[in-house]
Amino acid sequence: MQFHGSHILSVEQFGLADLSVLFQTAAKLEPVARGELACDVLDGALLGNLFFEPSTRTRMSFDAAFCRLGGRVCDTTGFQFSSMAKGESNHDASRVISGYVDIMVVRHPQMGSVKEFADASLVPVINAGDGPGEHPSQALLDLYTMLKELNRDLNTINGLKVAMVGDLRFGRTVHSLAKLLSLFKDIHFSFVSPAELKMPAYVVDFLRARGHTVKETTDMIAGVANSDVIYATRIQEERFESIDEAQRFKGSYAINSAFFDRYCDSHAILMHPLPRDNRSESCELNNDLNSHPQLAIFRQTDNGLVVRMAMFALVMGVEKDIETTFRPVRFQKKLIGA
Amino acid sequence: MQFHGSHILSVEQFGLADLSVLFQTAAKLEPVARGELACDVLDGALLGNLFFEPSTRTRMSFDAAFCRLGGRVCDTTGFQFSSMAKGESNHDASRVISGYVDIMVVRHPQMGSVKEFADASLVPVINAGDGPGEHPSQALLDLYTMLKELNRDLNTINGLKVAMVGDLRFGRTVHSLAKLLSLFKDIHFSFVSPAELKMPAYVVDFLRARGHTVKETTDMIAGVANSDVIYATRIQEERFESIDEAQRFKGSYAINSAFFDRYCDSHAILMHPLPRDNRSESCELNNDLNSHPQLAIFRQTDNGLVVRMAMFALVMGVEKDIETTFRPVRFQKKLIGA
Amino acid sequence: MQFHGSHILSVEQFGLADLSVLFQTAAKLEPVARGELACDVLDGALLGNLFFEPSTRTRMSFDAAFCRLGGRVCDTTGFQFSSMAKGESNHDASRVISGYVDIMVVRHPQMGSVKEFADASLVPVINAGDGPGEHPSQALLDLYTMLKELNRDLNTINGLKVAMVGDLRFGRTVHSLAKLLSLFKDIHFSFVSPAELKMPAYVVDFLRARGHTVKETTDMIAGVANSDVIYATRIQEERFESIDEAQRFKGSYAINSAFFDRYCDSHAILMHPLPRDNRSESCELNNDLNSHPQLAIFRQTDNGLVVRMAMFALVMGVEKDIETTFRPVRFQKKLIGA
Repeated sequence: MQFHGSHILSVEQFGLADLSVLFQTAAKLEPVARGELACDVLDGALLGNLFFEPSTRTRMSFDAAFCRLGGRVCDTTGFQFSSMAKGESNHDASRVISGYVDIMVVRHPQMGSVKEFADASLVPVINAGDGPGEHPSQALLDLYTMLKELNRDLNTINGLKVAMVGDLRFGRTVHSLAKLLSLFKDIHFSFVSPAELKMPAYVVDFLRARGHTVKETTDMIAGVANSDVIYATRIQEERFESIDEAQRFKGSYAINSAFFDRYCDSHAILMHPLPRDNRSESCELNNDLNSHPQLAIFRQTDNGLVVRMAMFALVMGVEKDIETTFRPVRFQKKLIGA
Repeated sequence: MQFHGSHILSVEQFGLADLSVLFQTAAKLEPVARGELACDVLDGALLGNLFFEPSTRTRMSFDAAFCRLGGRVCDTTGFQFSSMAKGESNHDASRVISGYVDIMVVRHPQMGSVKEFADASLVPVINAGDGPGEHPSQALLDLYTMLKELNRDLNTINGLKVAMVGDLRFGRTVHSLAKLLSLFKDIHFSFVSPAELKMPAYVVDFLRARGHTVKETTDMIAGVANSDVIYATRIQEERFESIDEAQRFKGSYAINSAFFDRYCDSHAILMHPLPRDNRSESCELNNDLNSHPQLAIFRQTDNGLVVRMAMFALVMGVEKDIETTFRPVRFQKKLIGA
Repeated sequence: MQFHGSHILSVEQFGLADLSVLFQTAAKLEPVARGELACDVLDGALLGNLFFEPSTRTRMSFDAAFCRLGGRVCDTTGFQFSSMAKGESNHDASRVISGYVDIMVVRHPQMGSVKEFADASLVPVINAGDGPGEHPSQALLDLYTMLKELNRDLNTINGLKVAMVGDLRFGRTVHSLAKLLSLFKDIHFSFVSPAELKMPAYVVDFLRARGHTVKETTDMIAGVANSDVIYATRIQEERFESIDEAQRFKGSYAINSAFFDRYCDSHAILMHPLPRDNRSESCELNNDLNSHPQLAIFRQTDNGLVVRMAMFALVMGVEKDIETTFRPVRFQKKLIGA
């Protein structure tokens, strides 16, 4: 793929060479993401950050990523264009806004809608989630996190053992991530879920056809054993006939500190697309893991920032100028007592 | 009018000399609006962008315009000041915010309210629409579009033939635009509407008193013939006794590709204040015109950006410094496959 | 207190030396707050401005303060994190966003919640109001206003005569301000309120224990006589058994121009945390005072901007670089007819 000037709509656009470029660019940007250096490479550039459904953190992540590169951002402030409430098409809305800005990020509840925005736009469009469709930056930051946490790279990730746990049927995150991991060799997938929420057969078949090992189980202990990565997801009670029915599962697919120490490899990392439902005792990843060194969920969102910065730099075609525009900042980040 | 330090509340403030200054400034800013150059002329300046009713695109257009000049923007994120819900006056709200920023844009559903903001403000206020009142930047961008599309200027626009079509009674856009066009000589207005939605008599009388020709008709084919500009507006079904009654008209005042080719001058341009209601088959400007070269509606919104940039530069008094602050950008805008 | 890297959660963190540093920093920043100079000292810095309840003006004040120092801002646009609606904890929300930005401002309706954000954050957190809890920047800007208006400083404020009027029971503003004033010597407090809305006994006892004079009265005329500062607050009718009951008080605690001229010291300043309820004839500070030179309420909000700028500069540790980053602006603020 050529990044410069392309829409980013799906993980299917990415080959190994693209991931290599993306992750090298992200690695270069880490000190900027942490606020240790300023960067001006997108000086003069304007992002239209269009969110048609609530997603505060994803919106702020894209927003922060563009700002950290020296650009400016125009955000939507509601979840519907007032003009679209009057019957305006995605085509018209996209074409108009694309005349104001240099790149757009679009989140929309309807599958395929972001493609419609891309088709009408004068500028590149990045898909930030189109309902049950795609949310490519999530799968990319997940993969970036695995490599970093496990001290591997795109050449040494082959043979990785990944357990995916929870609702594997409806979660677009695990589908996209499995698709992305299929680019490598000999990945060992362990899919752990209630029978009702199994990974769709077409995903399993696709992975096996590409030569990967797939194990499916309802047994949590067997499912997570010997994994390098345990990727937890929320059991979505609204999918079940009754909440009681769902509750039965929730406990069985939750990990707390004692469970981790007893049943998981000590080097395994715990990931999650977030949010966790922290109200519940049976939260997928218990609060008692919050200071556990193998809990990678917050380093995972931190990585989201830098991966999105890299996407912007590549799509705007400025990746070669990144380091020449680094500047010192006058502030020094520290937190007393931290 | 002296732009520097003035409120912009109405098109009635503008004379020919003002339009000349505004449009020359806008023309200079075109490469900045397109993201081909960066501009820092409003470095250090802060806009308070206050929208008290939903209008995503107009808000983003002012937002983008200020950013493209190097300024920063503080936006409202809801449609009411929380303090105004507790009974605060427009006076207090305006005076407070005007102490935080260097210029304000105000949109408000009540006619006259933006004048109240201006009266209490420490800084210039630009009216972005006060209900049935004024929305001066719309009429200005419409005129700028006509000149550019028809390759005319303020001296050669005399004699222009303009058809305005649809709801001419309630649309503030067509009233303001007619008022602005009355500054020129010998304009031929053709007002095409259902009898129930005719242009108000005071507008027609005003135009005739200034020496212009006004033709009024309910007949679409006769009305648009031989026009240089066909300015379509939405038939607002909510104004009619029944939707069926409105539907009867909608078809009659819609233009599609076949109608254009048969009944309109081939050099005529199609304009619209947007949004179009694209859900409807009887959309005023059919989707089958989307790639028609005479459909100017998106170039019209593009022009909105540059006209608003020029308004900001003039009201802030920096128009003389614009070109000296041009800088190259590092990104190069392109869209693969476009 | 060491500002650099600290959370600002309560006025109780501030001693006299801290106020001295804060107000000297604020004074330096005044020309930047007024838009007469640009400042780049927070170039490259990113603020997460998180408002979980409506407060347009306070949000815009923090937003403008950070922008005026050269930083960029990521705002929330709704009053709930979408992820928190799904049961995410304050801990998770704070930790995630704190990985995107360099400092956070948090407003939240629940007392203690901002402390929870601070505990989970990687970066400093400024409390912008946690329900009935604290809102430290308000008390600080109030004190800054008194010094400036009365031409006093931290050494000559001793002996000040302050009347606080209205609802002294529920208003967090007057509680925090009284606490802050208690740092000085021999302050004469006059608390003027209906019996039902008296200053809580623990505040009165605390002030007396620190050696200050406290007079409590229901009599407006006696209460405001000979005061240097008259700090009015809203009589909150919703606290009374009936609106009629409240109305009885409202008139008695309102100040208009005639009242001021007859009963108040001519050098006294009128302050108010705003908003005033301007709908009511019995507004605490009548609109007929709007151009009165002793009405300090708008200079008070102006001061809010510069005090918040100083808080940001100190918490980010850049106060020493402020003046070296001053730059001229190209625009010249003026308002024709003002």
